[in-house]
Amino acid sequence: MVAIFLISLITSFIFLPYFIKLMTIINVDGQPIRSFCLQDHFITKKGTPTMGGIIILASVLCSILFYVALNIKVLLLLFIITSFAVIGFLDDYYKLTVKSYHGLSGKVKILIQFFVAAVSVLILKSYSESNFTHVYLLNGFTIDLSYLYIPFAAFIIVGAANAVNLTDGLDSLAATQSITSFASLGLSAYLVQADVNIILSCIAFIGAILSFLWFNAHPAKIFMGDVGSLSIGAALGFISILIKREILLAMIGGIFVMETLSVIIQFIYFRYTKGKRIFLMSPIHHHFEKKGWSETTIVIRFWVIAVVLSVLAIAFFL
Amino acid sequence: MVAIFLISLITSFIFLPYFIKLMTIINVDGQPIRSFCLQDHFITKKGTPTMGGIIILASVLCSILFYVALNIKVLLLLFIITSFAVIGFLDDYYKLTVKSYHGLSGKVKILIQFFVAAVSVLILKSYSESNFTHVYLLNGFTIDLSYLYIPFAAFIIVGAANAVNLTDGLDSLAATQSITSFASLGLSAYLVQADVNIILSCIAFIGAILSFLWFNAHPAKIFMGDVGSLSIGAALGFISILIKREILLAMIGGIFVMETLSVIIQFIYFRYTKGKRIFLMSPIHHHFEKKGWSETTIVIRFWVIAVVLSVLAIAFFL
Repeated sequence: MVAIFLISLITSFIFLPYFIKLMTIINVDGQPIRSFCLQDHFITKKGTPTMGGIIILASVLCSILFYVALNIKVLLLLFIITSFAVIGFLDDYYKLTVKSYHGLSGKVKILIQFFVAAVSVLILKSYSESNFTHVYLLNGFTIDLSYLYIPFAAFIIVGAANAVNLTDGLDSLAATQSITSFASLGLSAYLVQADVNIILSCIAFIGAILSFLWFNAHPAKIFMGDVGSLSIGAALGFISILIKREILLAMIGGIFVMETLSVIIQFIYFRYTKGKRIFLMSPIHHHFEKKGWSETTIVIRFWVIAVVLSVLAIAFFL
Repeated sequence: MVAIFLISLITSFIFLPYFIKLMTIINVDGQPIRSFCLQDHFITKKGTPTMGGIIILASVLCSILFYVALNIKVLLLLFIITSFAVIGFLDDYYKLTVKSYHGLSGKVKILIQFFVAAVSVLILKSYSESNFTHVYLLNGFTIDLSYLYIPFAAFIIVGAANAVNLTDGLDSLAATQSITSFASLGLSAYLVQADVNIILSCIAFIGAILSFLWFNAHPAKIFMGDVGSLSIGAALGFISILIKREILLAMIGGIFVMETLSVIIQFIYFRYTKGKRIFLMSPIHHHFEKKGWSETTIVIRFWVIAVVLSVLAIAFFL
């Protein structure tokens, strides 16, 4: 367990500085910040190299290949991670080269993601026992979704991927949140006596993201990019399916859910009222920025919330 | 376990805002910042209310009194916490009223602390088995210090108290470090099958400090003050003695040790070379500030180091 943690941590820590140099040479301007972003961010964050997720994933994949037994669950996890990383990479690459915020068309991206997720869940189902389609609610109470489980599970994966993607808008925010989520999921996996290889995979992610956090601390030297956030989120979603605690993830990753809901609510309310807003800005971390919270305050307070939610989730809903 | 966490967390979270208001009324200027401090700090941190440790400790004491069996170990822990809190409080109070950085005389403070610590360890010894004076090194290898164990253990307590006190120089630094240390010590206590009441005490501290961190995030609304840092450090030291893993604490709390060593090395080198310095400034977090790291970068990177050290300590030296 410590070996995979250290390998992942050290690989990521060694290669990130070179990667930062490389990305600085390749692209002088860095990731275009959403043009409706806070003025402050536009000045301070412009020019920061992105796609640090590539190193996170490379470290995770290496350490999983070396230390984890490649059974069907782990192979599907690797497939999910890689697919979402490719989708994210294309998006990042497109944004960098075309130098505009608009990457791949939103609908196309989501459709491809759903397809990849559904295929993985279908394959997993064919290798699993008959109670695979049961969703665990709490205290042993389950509900059988039957064939509806496939779209449900695909929704969990795609939802988690895009939730982490939306959350990745402040230095260290997505990194601290996902470290906490992987730790809580890993602990849950241990407590429900899931396959040890799943726990090892969580540990690999924690190691790599800890090193990334070193360079992503405010003011960030590098961002993870969609290649990082989409694949990290998809991994969280798929791991929650592997340990059959899909609903638990929504509580452990409550901040990710809140960020996503803030965008959806803002959008619907805006449409419905023809131009009014509930939040000063969405995703919700920008709302708090506009309310005067500093970037660091938001990251630390959201982390405190995540820890408390994880404790409650594991104590009451595991 | 969750009950004590929640009680401590919520008590602290409810009372801190009132306490901040109270302290703002009582004292307009806040804690005097060490006058040799960075110019930046002098401007941004002046006027921030202090002594937030009072609420941390009140929450911890309340939840321990309600949820923990008051055996001799816990009673001595409460005695240590309270004594060091009083010493810290007098210091904070003196600094606030006299409005200068110099509180109680350094030597007097340390002597009182040593006395309190040694008395507690002596009482604990009289209630413990004969192998109490054995110090655990690693992998079952121990060394019997016999009567030298009393000054050794007192040194651990006083050292830990003052190490946390020195570390408490940046927003969130002492809080994030001590949360990590209590979590690692609590986990160690669980793994060595120590008294469950010790684990509960660690959890109480984690809850209260998490809430404190909410208000201590940069830019801090409140500092913990000596009343907080001295008693938190003393608690860490005494808990490491209760679970008989004194050396382990030095690794788990490696950042605290590093901060303390930086001050000692700087002092000795300065004396020896008659005026030269090794670090740009000590404690070492100020050295990195002078090197251009932002306050947030230091806090996050030190936290990453603390997590890695804790993992290594528990994996290899428990």
